[in-house]
Amino acid sequence: MKIAVAGAGAMGGRFGYMLSEAGFDVTLIDQWKPHVEAIRERGFEISYNGQDVVAKIPIFFPEEAVSKGMEFDLVILLTKSMQLDGMLAAIKPIVTNPKTFNICLLNGIGHERVVEKYVAKTNSILGNTLFTAGLVGPGKIKLQNTGTVEFSELHPNAKDMALKVVEVFKKAELNPIYSDDVFCTIYKKAILNATMNSLCTILDGNMHCVGTSPSAWPLFEGVVNEFAAIAAAEGIKFDKEEAITGIKKASDINGIGVHYPSMYQDLINQKRLTEADCITGYISEMGKKHGIATPYCDILTSMIHSKEELLKAE
Amino acid sequence: MKIAVAGAGAMGGRFGYMLSEAGFDVTLIDQWKPHVEAIRERGFEISYNGQDVVAKIPIFFPEEAVSKGMEFDLVILLTKSMQLDGMLAAIKPIVTNPKTFNICLLNGIGHERVVEKYVAKTNSILGNTLFTAGLVGPGKIKLQNTGTVEFSELHPNAKDMALKVVEVFKKAELNPIYSDDVFCTIYKKAILNATMNSLCTILDGNMHCVGTSPSAWPLFEGVVNEFAAIAAAEGIKFDKEEAITGIKKASDINGIGVHYPSMYQDLINQKRLTEADCITGYISEMGKKHGIATPYCDILTSMIHSKEELLKAE
Repeated sequence: MKIAVAGAGAMGGRFGYMLSEAGFDVTLIDQWKPHVEAIRERGFEISYNGQDVVAKIPIFFPEEAVSKGMEFDLVILLTKSMQLDGMLAAIKPIVTNPKTFNICLLNGIGHERVVEKYVAKTNSILGNTLFTAGLVGPGKIKLQNTGTVEFSELHPNAKDMALKVVEVFKKAELNPIYSDDVFCTIYKKAILNATMNSLCTILDGNMHCVGTSPSAWPLFEGVVNEFAAIAAAEGIKFDKEEAITGIKKASDINGIGVHYPSMYQDLINQKRLTEADCITGYISEMGKKHGIATPYCDILTSMIHSKEELLKAE
Repeated sequence: MKIAVAGAGAMGGRFGYMLSEAGFDVTLIDQWKPHVEAIRERGFEISYNGQDVVAKIPIFFPEEAVSKGMEFDLVILLTKSMQLDGMLAAIKPIVTNPKTFNICLLNGIGHERVVEKYVAKTNSILGNTLFTAGLVGPGKIKLQNTGTVEFSELHPNAKDMALKVVEVFKKAELNPIYSDDVFCTIYKKAILNATMNSLCTILDGNMHCVGTSPSAWPLFEGVVNEFAAIAAAEGIKFDKEEAITGIKKASDINGIGVHYPSMYQDLINQKRLTEADCITGYISEMGKKHGIATPYCDILTSMIHSKEELLKAE
């Protein structure tokens, strides 16, 4: 299977590396110039579970991949949320090839709406991943711990490919789960992002500190209730108790509680724009669509954006 | 006129000092031991508009003032919000003397409810001040700039005293304004505290940065709308446009915009508990009373309290 990874940052780099190591034919596509140039010059420098490796994987700018007439069986979409639209526009001839399927694994909710602007649902697979990945600098990433990737096709036409992807990902030790309810999976991950990531970033604390702050709990609960209301309106299964349990688990000081979540690292440490619009912002947008008040998500989204403005995030 | 200042921190110290300098008979009452001892040993060390002075003003613990059977014409209440109830309980024999009037000038809304638990409205004057004052350490304060004090009686019985206080404060250059609508005055100051103080503290920016952050404006407006709704329900005049203008004025980089508001200094710099319950928290409480949703004030109050918990504020 000929695979492209569109968006070859930290997470895209992880998928590209692990698939390449498993023997698949992988091409990276990315638009960040210093990153592409570094990988071409020195190879992809990866700290993989504590071991330093240099991976030789071909990498192209979107326009190069298009002008070379490249064709793939599968395009794995792993840009940042706000870059998805631009990436799809830039590689439109590649993703709209009728023989090409795409699998969108971005963090957040609602990305299928962006993909659908370019590619018919017939060729689309949707999911997300619980793997983590850290960008160290151009051409350098750090990969630790393990995770899973859960997904399913958005149209029966893509089912065969989804099942093939399960086999491919298995070989690459990406721990695939063929989902029977991918939107439920997406909401389940997004609620942790909406609560923990937002509040740790705003209140400046790690997951243990914020998760054990009694006054933060009305905030957690407010966001969970809004997710539940929007999920119900959208016909998506959402378990409030499970969401609360997930937040408590993330607060565990003997588990991941000591960590600062990815949104904190992006915005506070790296001054990079966040994906708030695809997390709490998505719930606010759905609230407007369904006439449901979502003040908790509205306020968290505004605060994160204000914080981006204060820090001049890019 | 024999005057006590109950709560002789930064602002109480300002009033005590300025009245004492104007020749009035002033006694300070405070419960913070290191502060009282420092003032007794070294005098009250005050940086007054850039000049260092040492003021000799008698200071007593509440129980001392009570056991000495002290009597006053006027007790100026200037504790922190959360200390008002304890102070009134401790000096109850003093404030409940039928010949004694009190004037409550604390920051925030709803303090008249606490005062009323101890003293009849007949002897109470209510107001607030736009002066500022900074605590440097025990026995040391820093006073800069000028301000005003606006107040009126809560019952016709206290009108004569209120008018006398106007004359007294005039002599002390405290710029008194005899208010024709003291609750309107209190809401007008509180809306700036509720918006600017809360958001600068949560988002970690000065008033200029936060006030010129486009994404902060839905937050400002949300709080202003809730204040307006509660003021209407309580029969208090509240001008939304004036509130918005006040926020914009506070954001001016050529004015006070470069400063961090008092709540920021208290909580972030000094790790001290805030008065959130008497500002946004009061609006939330009134929302429950009147059946009006106040999510903006609810969320800001929870966030400030969570931040207090994270910083182990005392």
